[in-house]
Amino acid sequence: MTSTPPETFPDAAASDPRALGWMQGAPPAPDRVIAMTDRDLFRFPKSRWAFSHMRQLAPTAGVSRGLGAPSTLGRRIDDAIDGLTFTPIGGATPVTWAESLAANYTDGLVVLHDGDIVYETYAGALTETGQHCAFSVTKSMMGLLAESLIVEGALDPDAPVADLIAELAGSAFGDATVRQVLDMTTGLRYSETYADPKADVWVYSAATSPLPKPEGFTGPRTFFDYLRTVAKDGEHGEAFAYKTINTDALGWILARTTGRSTAELLSERIWSRIGAEQDGYMTIDSIGVPFAGGGLSAGLRDLARVGQMVLDGGVAQGRQIVPSAAIDSLFGGGDPARFAKAGYGLLPGWSYRGMWWITHNAHRAIMARGVYGQSLYVDPTARMVIARFSSHPIAANAGNDPVTLPAFQAVGEHLARR
Amino acid sequence: MTSTPPETFPDAAASDPRALGWMQGAPPAPDRVIAMTDRDLFRFPKSRWAFSHMRQLAPTAGVSRGLGAPSTLGRRIDDAIDGLTFTPIGGATPVTWAESLAANYTDGLVVLHDGDIVYETYAGALTETGQHCAFSVTKSMMGLLAESLIVEGALDPDAPVADLIAELAGSAFGDATVRQVLDMTTGLRYSETYADPKADVWVYSAATSPLPKPEGFTGPRTFFDYLRTVAKDGEHGEAFAYKTINTDALGWILARTTGRSTAELLSERIWSRIGAEQDGYMTIDSIGVPFAGGGLSAGLRDLARVGQMVLDGGVAQGRQIVPSAAIDSLFGGGDPARFAKAGYGLLPGWSYRGMWWITHNAHRAIMARGVYGQSLYVDPTARMVIARFSSHPIAANAGNDPVTLPAFQAVGEHLARR
Repeated sequence: MTSTPPETFPDAAASDPRALGWMQGAPPAPDRVIAMTDRDLFRFPKSRWAFSHMRQLAPTAGVSRGLGAPSTLGRRIDDAIDGLTFTPIGGATPVTWAESLAANYTDGLVVLHDGDIVYETYAGALTETGQHCAFSVTKSMMGLLAESLIVEGALDPDAPVADLIAELAGSAFGDATVRQVLDMTTGLRYSETYADPKADVWVYSAATSPLPKPEGFTGPRTFFDYLRTVAKDGEHGEAFAYKTINTDALGWILARTTGRSTAELLSERIWSRIGAEQDGYMTIDSIGVPFAGGGLSAGLRDLARVGQMVLDGGVAQGRQIVPSAAIDSLFGGGDPARFAKAGYGLLPGWSYRGMWWITHNAHRAIMARGVYGQSLYVDPTARMVIARFSSHPIAANAGNDPVTLPAFQAVGEHLARR
Repeated sequence: MTSTPPETFPDAAASDPRALGWMQGAPPAPDRVIAMTDRDLFRFPKSRWAFSHMRQLAPTAGVSRGLGAPSTLGRRIDDAIDGLTFTPIGGATPVTWAESLAANYTDGLVVLHDGDIVYETYAGALTETGQHCAFSVTKSMMGLLAESLIVEGALDPDAPVADLIAELAGSAFGDATVRQVLDMTTGLRYSETYADPKADVWVYSAATSPLPKPEGFTGPRTFFDYLRTVAKDGEHGEAFAYKTINTDALGWILARTTGRSTAELLSERIWSRIGAEQDGYMTIDSIGVPFAGGGLSAGLRDLARVGQMVLDGGVAQGRQIVPSAAIDSLFGGGDPARFAKAGYGLLPGWSYRGMWWITHNAHRAIMARGVYGQSLYVDPTARMVIARFSSHPIAANAGNDPVTLPAFQAVGEHLARR
């Protein structure tokens, strides 16, 4: 019996989308085209271009920044950061922060300290005027919206979902509470292992694609239609189980509650109030519903602005844009015992709350996390925010956490001393 | 023998997209969905929603406004404008400016006088934070880019197209000069009568759609592939003949000359330099090439900013962003004798130059014009710019010119006296 060796990938330099020539020239060479209709458009290394150009690969709904002047971010570049060293989890040899960027296929990373930019870098296909897919960092944006509505009394966290969305009464969501959806403690029959071609996530992906369905396709055709088909697996409220469909159910709840799409709501409540310098956008399904579970693309510094607002207790540009009690709900964390049942060996003692990952580390950091390494890390002790976009070949944060988590901690410890 | 009566349409109020409920609710009612895969998504009255939401109906490339603060437009609303009266061409009864808005299915209109907003209105599915399809106004943006490159010496107007794009040597474009393409005096076998279902424009539309091609499709699959198939009809240089494919050939020339896509070029040279308040975007074909002939969507006030820059001889925000000689080339006009051969009964004495329509009227106004009534009207005598988005049911400016042209002239005469 032979074991399969772990898949290896070209490194960041060898997979650099500019070097590989994706979509360059008029026209690009036929084997250098990445198009909406490609089956493998998000496969590494095409992904390194695609994740910075989602709007060219799908219809999208805008997340307007509004029309005013962007806020100005101060700039005090800290040259010491590149040389910080740390030992990756499970590793034996220290690496430097600078080395960690390529190791994680970083496309862009900005560090704010006391609201000023102290570190900023772009690579791959991303520039400061570009937008990169945030993947599941989108979930945490939905969490901010939901926690806000709860504090404002517009959304009852204890209401069963069926009371809000009658169409979900017959699904697993029907007798889950809003809070259980928001904290992902629902018991749902749904597998999201990207490496498994038979996982439900691929059925979900086919259902929610805005492209024409294949001849004879009889499955669900939208986010909402799919959500109605989800069966229960176990009991709600017992264990954390990370499933994207919770966020799309939450998106439906948000839309039904407010009469706004999640893209409109994200613009109205956050993007237009943080002094964003760029519009964001969200990919949509075949009936125009934004992908609440992972569809946001945005500018890197605007993602950092969101992090700073969270760090500042919901205040941006001198204005309380998210209730402080909503931010407190996140920092208060979820239940580590329920979280432990999910078996994340790299995240001991963590919890999940309001669609955010709560580290419960010494700095009390909380994190928005997207597959392929998207991160928004808010460290209140270091008064630090890290926003990162990346295009890691491994579609699971276990692929980058051994480097990511000690790296973020190292720069947090460095800045805490400043 | 009976004659077919002219088709009639619901008026602006009856076709209002909000009243009709397109894409409202979570989810929208099945018969109120407008999606990328619909065959009739751009048919009136769906068009009244679709033209303000092109990004939800197609993949798009961004036209970045950059990251700085938008320019501030002064505001001196002139309440007299609504009451101005004029008689439509061929009409007997005077109408008011206010009445003309609904008559033309106006979705948004702004008038600048000496650079200040003196009139502004939004209707249909457009708001001040929305973007609306500019259709062939896009061509005039490409014209600004090309005229700029000519003045800078980067593009030779007398070069045969085959010298710049070898792939076009075998097509009708091969022995046309850049100037003939830019002034649309090429002799091309290509029909663009939207009302004729057998017109070449529909073949072009199928070729350049980013959607999957039907089983067994053997035709051209991109803008560039289609352009290579165009045969000659008559001689170049003899007559103006308005054909969108000229602009897509120009787009190819611009991209090949500069190493930039037309969307990137439009951002670099114009959108990022006029103090735009919003990003624009362009629809793209199956290999990511922006639709130079009609793919731009933008904010209304940003379109007006472009017009003000043209009025100001190429200066925006105190900086010469388009060479004054390029602007002079437009105002100098094309050859009215060649224009007359095209037989536009409503446009006597006009000409076409650098992808702009030149009125040669008493005010020396020039105009960018899009099907369904998109307009950018620059009147140097009145020191006035009118930017208009609309969604007229008739896909030809002959459908709105009888109201549009005297309306614009009336407000120009009014402001010229101020």
